[in-house]
Amino acid sequence: MPIDFAATKAQFHLPEGVIYLDGNSLGPMVRGVAARVEKAVTAEWGELLIRGWNRAGWMAQPRVLGDRIGRLIGAEPGSVVLGDTLSIKVYQALASALEMNPKRRVILSDTGNFPSDLYMAEGLCRTLGGQYRLKTVAPEEAMAAIDETVAVVMLTEVDYRTGRRHNMADITRRAHEMGAITVWDLAHSAGALPVNLSGVKADFGVGCTYKYLNSGPGGPAFIYVAPRHAEAARPALSGWLGHEAPFAFDLSYRPGQGVERMRVGTPPVLQMAALEAALDVWDGVDLGEVHAQSLRLQDQFIKGVEARAPMLQLATPRSHLMRGSQVSFRHPEGYAIMQALIAEGVIGDFRAPDILRFGFTPLYIDEDDVARAVSILARIMDYGTWDRPEFKQRAAVT
Amino acid sequence: MPIDFAATKAQFHLPEGVIYLDGNSLGPMVRGVAARVEKAVTAEWGELLIRGWNRAGWMAQPRVLGDRIGRLIGAEPGSVVLGDTLSIKVYQALASALEMNPKRRVILSDTGNFPSDLYMAEGLCRTLGGQYRLKTVAPEEAMAAIDETVAVVMLTEVDYRTGRRHNMADITRRAHEMGAITVWDLAHSAGALPVNLSGVKADFGVGCTYKYLNSGPGGPAFIYVAPRHAEAARPALSGWLGHEAPFAFDLSYRPGQGVERMRVGTPPVLQMAALEAALDVWDGVDLGEVHAQSLRLQDQFIKGVEARAPMLQLATPRSHLMRGSQVSFRHPEGYAIMQALIAEGVIGDFRAPDILRFGFTPLYIDEDDVARAVSILARIMDYGTWDRPEFKQRAAVT
Repeated sequence: MPIDFAATKAQFHLPEGVIYLDGNSLGPMVRGVAARVEKAVTAEWGELLIRGWNRAGWMAQPRVLGDRIGRLIGAEPGSVVLGDTLSIKVYQALASALEMNPKRRVILSDTGNFPSDLYMAEGLCRTLGGQYRLKTVAPEEAMAAIDETVAVVMLTEVDYRTGRRHNMADITRRAHEMGAITVWDLAHSAGALPVNLSGVKADFGVGCTYKYLNSGPGGPAFIYVAPRHAEAARPALSGWLGHEAPFAFDLSYRPGQGVERMRVGTPPVLQMAALEAALDVWDGVDLGEVHAQSLRLQDQFIKGVEARAPMLQLATPRSHLMRGSQVSFRHPEGYAIMQALIAEGVIGDFRAPDILRFGFTPLYIDEDDVARAVSILARIMDYGTWDRPEFKQRAAVT
Repeated sequence: MPIDFAATKAQFHLPEGVIYLDGNSLGPMVRGVAARVEKAVTAEWGELLIRGWNRAGWMAQPRVLGDRIGRLIGAEPGSVVLGDTLSIKVYQALASALEMNPKRRVILSDTGNFPSDLYMAEGLCRTLGGQYRLKTVAPEEAMAAIDETVAVVMLTEVDYRTGRRHNMADITRRAHEMGAITVWDLAHSAGALPVNLSGVKADFGVGCTYKYLNSGPGGPAFIYVAPRHAEAARPALSGWLGHEAPFAFDLSYRPGQGVERMRVGTPPVLQMAALEAALDVWDGVDLGEVHAQSLRLQDQFIKGVEARAPMLQLATPRSHLMRGSQVSFRHPEGYAIMQALIAEGVIGDFRAPDILRFGFTPLYIDEDDVARAVSILARIMDYGTWDRPEFKQRAAVT
């Protein structure tokens, strides 16, 4: 049965007068979330107190929700667990992968990867000692750069700036042929397009939940470990909740079963509750259909902007095969243009130095929204209304 | 002006019929928290969406709340930042401390430290390579074990099982005399007793907020870096929000100013909101007075239990100087006894193998609560009502 996008849109709270094209940065609130969080605060924490860990299921949430996300990314049951932030999960995956490939010293990534992934790799290399290094190449050269020196290929499937999409299946196959292990960052994939971690034989996957999965600001990250690696992967961040028996309070660490060992500390219960309710919108939703509809909306937007605001230069590949769920345009005054757009209720975001990003998330964005966004952008460019001091003033977070 | 404990108690929501002696594990809900979290969900996330990072101050919360906690632990302004879990913060502090003491290879801790601290140290030593090691001694031997081989002294001020308190000033002084750096875990100190990080010249401090600071299940952790070390401490977990200019999206990492570099990923905004409201109860509260009152309640409890349930053996030191904010008793059937207590509304907790823990948190526990708790415990022991199958059945989280 095809998705009823009007029905999914009705499940989201969207502020009056806003066209929200920034779900690729922070997803909007699913209507059921407020009540679920209130329940976690007042009925669970307030009334159960410490007993909530068992009676309200807090302790099990990271793996229960892990399985629900696992279904959206083609992961085997029991292979995904929630917790921490994406940066921490990158560190965990990388550290385990490097240890599993002990004769090699190179982490290969690309310049389109989210900087925090690169920073975490840099920090890990420093901690491991001088012989490890991070090598970054241009995104289009990543495939060819996989050689027999590479221990780990660490890539984000969809480029956070340009929306350019890697071919996960081909790169994973190539990596394995060359004896490398893959760490896929799914920040801009999970909930945006079909991902098949088990199908492509990915080794590690990481991602965040506050973008396309709408868990709210600072929602927990997730990590996937392929079941075939689950017992070989040794956690570098060996926290008590990844211990085989956390409540035995042993003095020495023994890794827990499978992906459970990637848990570290106490899970953020209120954020988990928000995520739980946010995931309800995915029941029965097919990601292939969501992505196909996103591509239609993207095409509508590209066509409209190129016709009516031709001074903006498309930064996203035209091929559907190379696109995620966002469209980016370049303009030297991108920052001010985005501020002018936001002032008129069209919320996208800006990424230095010159990228305007627009996310197309069909669960709550439709053709009318896209048409209106195009018109407003065209008007801003026509009249040059972005050229005002208040739009050029940089905020702390851009 | 002395603290009006009846007034502070009125600020907490405590379930009907419950005497809550487990604030040392998970603090109860401050009444203002539910409204503050609801505001974060519906008014901030729901209405501001991505704009909340600036307009609702989300991005600044980790350091704004860090300063509020800093006041409670004697930290200099700008030296504390919130985020992640305590285990992650232990790893960060340890990794920086080891790098700052490059000629030494030993982390010294004690067997009364919380196991996750030991596990994280173990994982870090493994990641750093074979030459590093974690040495643990009995708590009472920690001071004497600090010698010129020790790089870092990592201790929790108050033992999570026995409540035994280290002398932070003396140990820090001794560590410095021997050329070691200190990492103090304040999990059972912050909000429980006067801590003076700057006064004792501590190097690093870490702690959690969901115990005595009442931030709710899974609330964020904090880290303190002494200002004199702030520029020397290099983060091993070098995430984008610890970068000097996160939104420049540079490809290489440059540590941020001072303690800001210990930020890693996106802060958990809903948990931060809960913490913000929970901290309001500390306005104008003197920790010395809180601890003095806790000790009076502890003495009342010890006296009552020893008189009326003499088969329980005190595990906490009698000296006020060696006590935190909890009292522990040992009994071979501790688990079942605690379950029987909880069934009667007296909530403490159990720590393997035989420890019954009771926290005395004067902001919401008074003499009447203690008297009733003693009576119920005495009755359970007199009648042996703990000796039932339902009380011996172990739950997932104990």
